[in-house]
Amino acid sequence: MTIDELTRNRSAWLRADMPMADIVISSRIRLARNVAGFPFLAKADNVQRREVYRLLRDSIDRAQVADDLTFIDLETVDEMDRQVLMERHLISKQLAESDGSRAVAFSKEETVSLMINEEDHLRMQVLRSGLQMDECWAVISRIDNAIEEHIDFAFHTRFGYLTACPTNVGTGIRVSAMLHLPALKLTGEMERAFRAAKDMHLAIRGLHGEGTEATGDLYQISNQTTLGKSEEEIISEFKHLIIPKMVEYEKRARQAMLREKSTALDDKIWRAYGLLTHARTVSTEEALFLLSHVRMGVSLGRIDSLKLEALNDLFLMIQPAHLQKLAGKKLNGEERSTARAELIRKRLTNVNTN
Amino acid sequence: MTIDELTRNRSAWLRADMPMADIVISSRIRLARNVAGFPFLAKADNVQRREVYRLLRDSIDRAQVADDLTFIDLETVDEMDRQVLMERHLISKQLAESDGSRAVAFSKEETVSLMINEEDHLRMQVLRSGLQMDECWAVISRIDNAIEEHIDFAFHTRFGYLTACPTNVGTGIRVSAMLHLPALKLTGEMERAFRAAKDMHLAIRGLHGEGTEATGDLYQISNQTTLGKSEEEIISEFKHLIIPKMVEYEKRARQAMLREKSTALDDKIWRAYGLLTHARTVSTEEALFLLSHVRMGVSLGRIDSLKLEALNDLFLMIQPAHLQKLAGKKLNGEERSTARAELIRKRLTNVNTN
Repeated sequence: MTIDELTRNRSAWLRADMPMADIVISSRIRLARNVAGFPFLAKADNVQRREVYRLLRDSIDRAQVADDLTFIDLETVDEMDRQVLMERHLISKQLAESDGSRAVAFSKEETVSLMINEEDHLRMQVLRSGLQMDECWAVISRIDNAIEEHIDFAFHTRFGYLTACPTNVGTGIRVSAMLHLPALKLTGEMERAFRAAKDMHLAIRGLHGEGTEATGDLYQISNQTTLGKSEEEIISEFKHLIIPKMVEYEKRARQAMLREKSTALDDKIWRAYGLLTHARTVSTEEALFLLSHVRMGVSLGRIDSLKLEALNDLFLMIQPAHLQKLAGKKLNGEERSTARAELIRKRLTNVNTN
Repeated sequence: MTIDELTRNRSAWLRADMPMADIVISSRIRLARNVAGFPFLAKADNVQRREVYRLLRDSIDRAQVADDLTFIDLETVDEMDRQVLMERHLISKQLAESDGSRAVAFSKEETVSLMINEEDHLRMQVLRSGLQMDECWAVISRIDNAIEEHIDFAFHTRFGYLTACPTNVGTGIRVSAMLHLPALKLTGEMERAFRAAKDMHLAIRGLHGEGTEATGDLYQISNQTTLGKSEEEIISEFKHLIIPKMVEYEKRARQAMLREKSTALDDKIWRAYGLLTHARTVSTEEALFLLSHVRMGVSLGRIDSLKLEALNDLFLMIQPAHLQKLAGKKLNGEERSTARAELIRKRLTNVNTN
């Protein structure tokens, strides 16, 4: 699959057909690994970096991770293509913006992505729609084992897997879920949820991970601890405790708004819909803000002509690189805002054709 | 006609079928008169005030001003009814809110209104849609003459008609037009137009006259001088010079926006339309602000499914007392905002039925 084809694809993890998918957009597990006998990337020279690349690519090929894996050498594609990959969550912001020998391999449904020479030599991630932690874990541990049959990962008998950043040492696992929490934001209870998360040693971040803003009321919630607990314990905690609790908070906030301020809530939802279906120019930030309210309206059954999946897809498609791919040319900021407004109007108005 | 019937009526002066009606909402001429031999109202006691009332009512009846005149004793109707009359521009804010013996007589089409015991003993006004100064003048001078056949007005051979406020002495005339000037506001050129108006000894005021805000980008522009010029001179200046000049300013501002910022202009127009057709609660002020942009969009042919007349009527119908009359009961602020949003949605969406 080419990157241009990607932008016409609908990522499987946006399907919104899974349990709690109205609030849990996606589940994600990633594992950090480093090739034994090579320095971490901060200390590696170009020759070592290229050798790590070659070894990992070779191991991934031999491991037959998936039939439909697309391999992209990130040095050979331009900035726009890297941005598309980032906007689709197939690579991290860091991998998109760094230099030197690096790559990504991803599956056709975009649920598996293997990053070479990101912060660690290898970062594997599996993304799924809704709350599907066990499914993510089944896939990623199979991939991890398959690759490990062909290459030695840096491993310490006491500490476990060694990683560039000490916070990842041990299991090298990060379990996360992308949550849509508009009601917690609107009722001003986000702060309380943040504190509760902190007490459970969780991190809450924006749409594109560390250091990014929670635009569109999308929050990534993830574990901070990787050492001293097994992968299964961490995953189980996420699945049975943490995510259901956050979902419960959000649902309670929504119900409270429905009960006490249903006119104000409908007003917010329908104004957002009215603006999105009529605006002639709109920034990414405003669009995400408004789409978030429309999405909540759909979840709550206040707008019944739209599907969550179509909205999830719009969250992705309105981003700068995607808009430019769609237009087939470079667009300046003003042109993007116009193209964005047009795309949204089309998608939200001609509901049946999308 | 009762006041309840009034609220189901469409004032003739909102018809928008006259020249320049896209910018000139209405033309208005009023004359201030006082009954000879009685003190001005500030000095009149209740007995004198009632006698003035009686004499004027009698003269109006005998003058047969119009076949379809409705006479309302403002002491016998409640605050809500007075507010309806004010919202329809049939009485002034001052007359609505003052005390004591006072009244209004108005014609079925609401183009003629005669206020008894406002600031002066008698204030007559004629309102017309669009730029129709001569027509206003023809009607009001006929009424003035007809009444004067039955009563003596305070008149000084050198100063002319005597009035409670010295700014009205002489002709007692105030010529005004209600203008819709959204583009001058948006382009920030209103200040310049204000200065030009001041140089021409004009006053610019808000929707309900002196001391009120220019909500909905509606401005009342009127003469300041009543002495030393004939009525015909003042009217001719308004008709041929002042109003065409203001209209020209506004048109130029609209054309400049269309030329240089047509996307931004359409964005403003359509966002306003999108909000009005979807909001679940809206204040008078916001509604007027948004209706103003929609009205400009209709004038400029950017929205072709709506008629100016329907919008003019909405400007009037969304006001607090009208909404309550429509609902048939008292509504608190929150309920009014909901009723207002509902009325606007209905009127703007089911275009053909309105």
